[in-house]
Amino acid sequence: MRTEMGWSSADRIVVRGMDLPRQILGHFNLGDMAFLELSGRAPSAHESKLFNAMVVTLVEHGITPSALAARLTYLGAPEAMQAAVAAGLCGLGSVFVGSTEGCARMLFEELPDPKAKIDLKAAAKRIVAERGMIPGIGHPIHKPVDPRTPRLFEIARECGFYGPYCELIERIAAQKKLPLNATGAIGALACEMGFDWKVCRGLGVMARAVGLVGHLLEEARDPLAQELWLRTEQEATANLKPKR
Amino acid sequence: MRTEMGWSSADRIVVRGMDLPRQILGHFNLGDMAFLELSGRAPSAHESKLFNAMVVTLVEHGITPSALAARLTYLGAPEAMQAAVAAGLCGLGSVFVGSTEGCARMLFEELPDPKAKIDLKAAAKRIVAERGMIPGIGHPIHKPVDPRTPRLFEIARECGFYGPYCELIERIAAQKKLPLNATGAIGALACEMGFDWKVCRGLGVMARAVGLVGHLLEEARDPLAQELWLRTEQEATANLKPKR
Amino acid sequence: MRTEMGWSSADRIVVRGMDLPRQILGHFNLGDMAFLELSGRAPSAHESKLFNAMVVTLVEHGITPSALAARLTYLGAPEAMQAAVAAGLCGLGSVFVGSTEGCARMLFEELPDPKAKIDLKAAAKRIVAERGMIPGIGHPIHKPVDPRTPRLFEIARECGFYGPYCELIERIAAQKKLPLNATGAIGALACEMGFDWKVCRGLGVMARAVGLVGHLLEEARDPLAQELWLRTEQEATANLKPKR
Amino acid sequence: MRTEMGWSSADRIVVRGMDLPRQILGHFNLGDMAFLELSGRAPSAHESKLFNAMVVTLVEHGITPSALAARLTYLGAPEAMQAAVAAGLCGLGSVFVGSTEGCARMLFEELPDPKAKIDLKAAAKRIVAERGMIPGIGHPIHKPVDPRTPRLFEIARECGFYGPYCELIERIAAQKKLPLNATGAIGALACEMGFDWKVCRGLGVMARAVGLVGHLLEEARDPLAQELWLRTEQEATANLKPKR
Repeated sequence: MRTEMGWSSADRIVVRGMDLPRQILGHFNLGDMAFLELSGRAPSAHESKLFNAMVVTLVEHGITPSALAARLTYLGAPEAMQAAVAAGLCGLGSVFVGSTEGCARMLFEELPDPKAKIDLKAAAKRIVAERGMIPGIGHPIHKPVDPRTPRLFEIARECGFYGPYCELIERIAAQKKLPLNATGAIGALACEMGFDWKVCRGLGVMARAVGLVGHLLEEARDPLAQELWLRTEQEATANLKPKR
Repeated sequence: MRTEMGWSSADRIVVRGMDLPRQILGHFNLGDMAFLELSGRAPSAHESKLFNAMVVTLVEHGITPSALAARLTYLGAPEAMQAAVAAGLCGLGSVFVGSTEGCARMLFEELPDPKAKIDLKAAAKRIVAERGMIPGIGHPIHKPVDPRTPRLFEIARECGFYGPYCELIERIAAQKKLPLNATGAIGALACEMGFDWKVCRGLGVMARAVGLVGHLLEEARDPLAQELWLRTEQEATANLKPKR
Repeated sequence: MRTEMGWSSADRIVVRGMDLPRQILGHFNLGDMAFLELSGRAPSAHESKLFNAMVVTLVEHGITPSALAARLTYLGAPEAMQAAVAAGLCGLGSVFVGSTEGCARMLFEELPDPKAKIDLKAAAKRIVAERGMIPGIGHPIHKPVDPRTPRLFEIARECGFYGPYCELIERIAAQKKLPLNATGAIGALACEMGFDWKVCRGLGVMARAVGLVGHLLEEARDPLAQELWLRTEQEATANLKPKR
Repeated sequence: MRTEMGWSSADRIVVRGMDLPRQILGHFNLGDMAFLELSGRAPSAHESKLFNAMVVTLVEHGITPSALAARLTYLGAPEAMQAAVAAGLCGLGSVFVGSTEGCARMLFEELPDPKAKIDLKAAAKRIVAERGMIPGIGHPIHKPVDPRTPRLFEIARECGFYGPYCELIERIAAQKKLPLNATGAIGALACEMGFDWKVCRGLGVMARAVGLVGHLLEEARDPLAQELWLRTEQEATANLKPKR
C-alpha cells in the first residue's frame, strides 16, 4: 500500500513532492492546489488561469436539488455541517454532473491523440447521426447561447488551450442546432489540458462542495428548509387526511 | 423562501450579485470564489492571498481516516465518485476538523470586538487556567513548532491581518508550552478576517473535498483499499475462525 | 484489531456466534437480527416483541426533511440509491432523532441501577425544576397524548418491561403537563431493556433507513422532487431576477 | 406533490393506510414493516417468513469495506453516528450490492410473466452463452456451495415461493458450474414475490444499515479504526519519507 499524495514529519509537510509551508502557502491559490492534487505538479500561469475558471464555473448554480438536500439535512443536524455538505454531494450523479464526464469521455474516445489530424466536421456529423442525446449539448434555460461557454473558450484561447476537442464539440453543437452548455465546454477543456475523463466528475464535486458551504451558511442566517418541509408535508398528505 | 446566492435567466448567470461570465470567470480563482460565496463580496488582493493560503493548508493531510473512508467507498461504488467524497467528508467532525471552529469560537467569545483594548497576556493566563484542552493547541507530530503556523502568520502580516486574535492564541500556546497548530492559526485568522466561527468547519470541509478527489483519482490509478480490507478482515476475524 | 461481529469460511457463515443459515435464517425476523447485532445474543420472545415494536415505530414519519433530502438526491443520482438513503440519514442529528438518545441518557444517569429504590416522584420534580427542555417530552402535533406512547407501554407491560425508567419519564411528563412522545417512550424502554444510551441513535438510524427506501421507491413511481425543486427555485430567486 | 407513505393528526398516525399504534405496533416485526413500506400492504405469514429471511441474510457480512468506512468515519465524528452509517452505505454500489439487482433484472427481463411456460433449460443455456459474468453466480469464498442459498430456497419452498425464477437461476448456475450465491438467490426470490428489480438495491441498503449500527457500537466498545489508520499511514508513506 503506497500513496504519493503527501507525508509529514515533525518539521516538514510535503504534498505531492512540494513543501507545503515554503513552496505552496502564499504561492498557490485553491484552484492551483486542486491542480497539484490531480496532476502531481504545479500548474503553469496559463494552466492556473484556465483551470481556476473551469472549477469556478461549477461552484454555484443557485437553488439546485443538491443545495436543497444539504439545507434540509442541516435543519436536522446543524451540529454536523460536514454531513449536510455530504448529503448535498450525494446527488451529483448521472443527471446533473455526469454530462461533463460524458462529454469528455466521448471526445477523448473520438480523438485519443489530440495531435492526430482528423476531419472534425465529418466526425461531428457522424457523432450526431449515431447518438441521441449528446452530453454537454443543450440547456433548458440558456438558449440560444450558454453565456459561460464563449467566456470559457475566450479564456482558453488567451491561455493557448483552445484546440481540437473544443472545435469538435462546437461543431457537434452547431450540427445539433443546440447551445453548447458549460459542462460540455468544461469537458472539452479537460481534454485539452490532458486530464483523464474520470477527473471531470471530481471537478464538479469539489466545486460544488464550495458552493454547498455557501448555501449552508445562508441557511444558518436566513433559513428556508423548515418552511419548505412544512409546506410540502401539508400539500403531499392533503388527500390522505380525513376532512373535518 | 429566498436566497441571495444566485440566479440565472436565458442570457445571464449572477452569483452573489456579480455577473459570472463577465465579472468572475478569468478574474477569480477558486479561493476567491469561496470567499464570495461566504461573504457576499469580492476579496481584496490581501484578503485573496490570505484566504487562499488558509484553505490551501487544509486540502491535503495524506492518509487520514477520511481519505481511507473515501477510498473504501470507491472500492464498492466506483461509478459514484460523489458518494465516495461524501463518505470521506462525513468524518470531518469533532475530532479532526472541529478544532478550527472551537478555536475561533473561543477567541471570538473572549474578544467580540477586535478593537477593544484588553490585556491579552492576562486573558491568555486566565483561559489556560480555566480550561483543560484548548482547541488549536498541541500536535501529535509537529513539535515544537507546526511549520504551517509561522508561514500562515507571515502571510497574515504581509497582508495586514495579524492582529489581536493571532496574538491571543500565540500567548495561549506559549503559556501552555505547546505548539500552536495550523487549525488554531486558521481559527485565529478567520476571526481577524471577520468571519463567523461557524464558517470554520466549512473551510475544512470544502478544502478536504478537493483533497479527497485527489485521493480517489490516486485510488483509481494505484489502489490500496482492497488490500487494506482483505488484510483487516483476516486479522480481525483470526481469533473467531476455527483452527484447522 | 478484532471483531466479534462475524466471520465466514467456505461452508460456514457465523454472525455473533450463531450459524447464519441454520440458526438464524427462518428463525429470526429483521428486528431480532438487529437485537443480535446490538446485544450479541438472541432475544427472548418478549424481548423480540418489544424491540420490534420500538424500531417499527421509528420507520415511517411521512414527509420529513430527511425523506425530502433523500428524494432530492435520487433526482440527481437515480443510479446510486444507496447514496440517496445516505443523504437522508445524514440529517438524523440533534434536532429530530437526538431526543431518544437524550432521554435515555438522562434517565440512565438519574438511575444507573434500575433496582435501586429511589423516590421517582421527587426525582421527576427535581429534574423538571433543574432543566429547561426535556428530551422526549412535548410534541408539536400529538397533543394531549402521543398515541404511540400508551401502545408501546402496553406492549412493554405485556412483555414484563414496564419499570422504573418508564415510570420516571411518565412522572416527568405529568409534571411538565406535556405529552410523553414516542422518542421519550423508546428512550425509557431502551433503558429497561438494558441497552446503552448510545444504542438509541442507532435504533432511529436503522429504522429510518427502512423508511427511506420506501420513500425512494415511491419517488421512482410517483415523483415529487423535481416539482419541489423548480417551485422553490422560482420563489426563492423571484426578488433577485430583473422585472421584465 | 403527493405521498401515500403516511400522515398524522393530533391523535392518529397512519402508515400506508394502516393505523400505526393499533394495527402495526405489537403485530408487525421490522421485516413486516419493511414489506409494508415497499408493497403498500401487510405481508401474509408466508411472505413475512420469506421476506424476513431475505433481508436478515444481508445484514451482517463481517469486516467489509463498507463497515470499515463507517468505523473510520465514526473515529472522526463520534457525535454524528448517523453520518458514519451514511458513509458506510455510500459504498453499496455496483461492486458489492449491485448483483442482487442485476440478477433480479436479468431474470425478470427473461421472464416478465412468471406464468408463461418457457423452456427454462434452453433459456439458461442461451443466457450463459450470451453473457460473460452473470450477476448472482460465483463466490470467492463460498465454494462449491454458498450455504445461504439452499437454506433460503428451503424456506421459499416451505412458503410456496419456489418457482420459475429460482429454477432458472439454479439452471444457470449449474450450466456455469459455479455456486449460486445468496445475492443471486435473493434476486430470484424478489422476482418470485413480485417485487420490481429496483427494490433489490433497497433490500441490501436497509439490511446493511442495521449491520452498520452493530459495527459502530462494537467500534465504540472495542475500536480498531485508529490502529487501522495509523498502520496504513505509516506503510503507505514509508517510501516518501526521508531515511534518517
